[in-house]
Amino acid sequence: MTQISDAKKGIITEEMRAVAKNESLEPEYIRKMVAKGRIVIPKNVNHQFDGIRGIGEGLSVKVNVNLGTSMDWIHPEEELEKLKIALKYGADAVMDLSTGGDIINIRKKIINESPIPVGTVPIYQAGIYKAHERGKAVVDMTEDDMFRAIEEHGKEGVDFITVHTGVTTSTVEKLKNRKRVTGMVSRGGSFLLAWILHNGEENPLYRNFDYLLELAKEYDMTLSLGDGLRPGGIADSTDIPQIDELLTLGELVKRSREYGVQAMVEGPGHIIMNQVGANVILEKSVTDGAPFYVLGPLVTDIFPGYDHIVGAIGGAMAAMAGADFLCYLTPAEHLALPTIDDVKEGLIASKIAAHAVDITRGRGIERDIAMDRARGNLEWAEQFKLCFDPEKARAYRERRGPGVEEVCSMCGEFCALRMANEYLKG
Amino acid sequence: MTQISDAKKGIITEEMRAVAKNESLEPEYIRKMVAKGRIVIPKNVNHQFDGIRGIGEGLSVKVNVNLGTSMDWIHPEEELEKLKIALKYGADAVMDLSTGGDIINIRKKIINESPIPVGTVPIYQAGIYKAHERGKAVVDMTEDDMFRAIEEHGKEGVDFITVHTGVTTSTVEKLKNRKRVTGMVSRGGSFLLAWILHNGEENPLYRNFDYLLELAKEYDMTLSLGDGLRPGGIADSTDIPQIDELLTLGELVKRSREYGVQAMVEGPGHIIMNQVGANVILEKSVTDGAPFYVLGPLVTDIFPGYDHIVGAIGGAMAAMAGADFLCYLTPAEHLALPTIDDVKEGLIASKIAAHAVDITRGRGIERDIAMDRARGNLEWAEQFKLCFDPEKARAYRERRGPGVEEVCSMCGEFCALRMANEYLKG
Repeated sequence: MTQISDAKKGIITEEMRAVAKNESLEPEYIRKMVAKGRIVIPKNVNHQFDGIRGIGEGLSVKVNVNLGTSMDWIHPEEELEKLKIALKYGADAVMDLSTGGDIINIRKKIINESPIPVGTVPIYQAGIYKAHERGKAVVDMTEDDMFRAIEEHGKEGVDFITVHTGVTTSTVEKLKNRKRVTGMVSRGGSFLLAWILHNGEENPLYRNFDYLLELAKEYDMTLSLGDGLRPGGIADSTDIPQIDELLTLGELVKRSREYGVQAMVEGPGHIIMNQVGANVILEKSVTDGAPFYVLGPLVTDIFPGYDHIVGAIGGAMAAMAGADFLCYLTPAEHLALPTIDDVKEGLIASKIAAHAVDITRGRGIERDIAMDRARGNLEWAEQFKLCFDPEKARAYRERRGPGVEEVCSMCGEFCALRMANEYLKG
Repeated sequence: MTQISDAKKGIITEEMRAVAKNESLEPEYIRKMVAKGRIVIPKNVNHQFDGIRGIGEGLSVKVNVNLGTSMDWIHPEEELEKLKIALKYGADAVMDLSTGGDIINIRKKIINESPIPVGTVPIYQAGIYKAHERGKAVVDMTEDDMFRAIEEHGKEGVDFITVHTGVTTSTVEKLKNRKRVTGMVSRGGSFLLAWILHNGEENPLYRNFDYLLELAKEYDMTLSLGDGLRPGGIADSTDIPQIDELLTLGELVKRSREYGVQAMVEGPGHIIMNQVGANVILEKSVTDGAPFYVLGPLVTDIFPGYDHIVGAIGGAMAAMAGADFLCYLTPAEHLALPTIDDVKEGLIASKIAAHAVDITRGRGIERDIAMDRARGNLEWAEQFKLCFDPEKARAYRERRGPGVEEVCSMCGEFCALRMANEYLKG
């Protein structure tokens, strides 16, 4: 049984109750929205963990952290440290995107140690394993390789998988005819595009979508319908191939729901700022409100080294318009595999975006108000207690300590709060 | 003669031409908007500099960097280094907010070395000098002290001054009756509030606004009408005292324009995200389109150490809604006087916000598109040329270099762009 099939039967599962409790909502609301497919609860039947999360309409905005090795940086222990940092700073999910080293064991360790939902992209495994065979390349992977990888991930307990089901022969044809400025930037999408062009056949994940649904249902893996054609630069934002793919995903969301499989939809990517809202509205309309998982989005392309900030701006705007799930970006995006510190900086930038939107809906605003009060009263110990990252805040204050304890070195003895408080109290 | 009085007479000044050229607009458009007071060109007749900037409707979004010592950190040479960093990373103006040490000489050096407009808050000088006299306090400053400081700044060549003309006996009364969570956070505003309460008299800058206009006109100092009552936390966002002050400022903008003095209006501060747009609309409506200079705004209060990111999110939203001028925030905001590196990080965060909005209006988008193309073609040398901060971008890439030159260590040999390009080219 999956969450959605239970929900449709009127059953409120333990996981729905957990989500309701976390979000201070009625369990029946969660059930109804899961039944409609407007909320997903990624939770593989083979993965036992405490940090159950719901993603979707009416819930707080969630943040995902990508982890994983690449062929150029294979340090599994570092990826496990990234997981710890992700948990410490409030990630709601992690995706293991490892493509280097013993990716099966890395994944197993991450699933085992993660108390929050874990996502993967099974096509990586299918393509990479094939590419490692003598004389073979990614495009030599077979349909069987693809589905076997998905089944394996399901058995191991992966909670949600990205499947690039919208990269079809028809979209590839359109992509050939309409030259993009930044081609294709989705790794899984490029595997399938290359496979289609090399083999001259339809994307097996699309052609045999029913089989995919069967596997997903067996383990209650949530499908994250990948945007293989997401723009890789604002020059391509909201272009025809991307929207064409979204229309396909809209149909597949419907089929998933009917089959009893949870589904969400991935979105761009790179979007010029005045189009962010439209992208969210479009996704919500075409998919009848499927949870929207955005990658950033990035609202300008000339700030490598600062893309966590660029993504936080785009993420805040997307979430304000209704996006449900933000994939973080680190300062290393577009440049290198991130370090542990990059993961922390990237996650906190996304948490800022998520929280800033949540409080407009009243969620978690008590903490901001408590901070405002502590600040107004110049209560520093209380301020640090309320900080999202107290260590960093303390370090800043102490680096240039004030001469007078109750103020800070910005204004020193000419602290506005102190002066106004003093005279207003008379 | 001031820019606005010339503009009203139909004269296109050299400065208007410079602005028109920078912005690729017709000089006549600039003249018309300066005449209406919808664009200001801060340029003191006694300050000769090349980096003329226009601020206001139809122009690119500008960014200000605050510099200056405090009683707790008096290192004038560091403030001059901050000026260099501000210039290197594209600041459009700097404000010298020094309150510690020989503030007159620090200011003179900054004016002398700055090729962009310089702003100050003259009331600091008036209050601080008084407080340094034996047995005296900030509130003992006289009306004469206040206007003398303004005149001195005018003579020295300050291009724009913040004057808290909206902190009146009437608003102070309202503030007493309506307890705020975070009191008053404007330093200059608190000087005047304390002065009003201590002396039982009206704010001289408000009462004798005509004299202020006379001084400003003599040097063509642009007035930046300060928001002394800006909220210091989102708990107070868009509250009555702030809006009440804005209404006063709206009247004073009108009087400034009539008198031939350029004026812009300062805005919050801390605003919950769903109210950012409304604050901009309100300012534009009440002041008949006066340039809006926002401080951030900050959209959540629990991320000290990351307030440059919080401010970049708020700044992007404000600019998207029509704000013209963003005051940067550094990661040290609310905690300490910033270091040189904090200034760089803060400025770049604000530049991201400004640029992301500018490109939605077509300004500067060529650089993003060139980056998208370089990225699509995996041309790294070209990408670094287009980066806003090439040193940082290079450092990230090199820290974890790829095994294959043309990709990066994020995806390594499984680079999506490379694979898609290869197969699309057939």
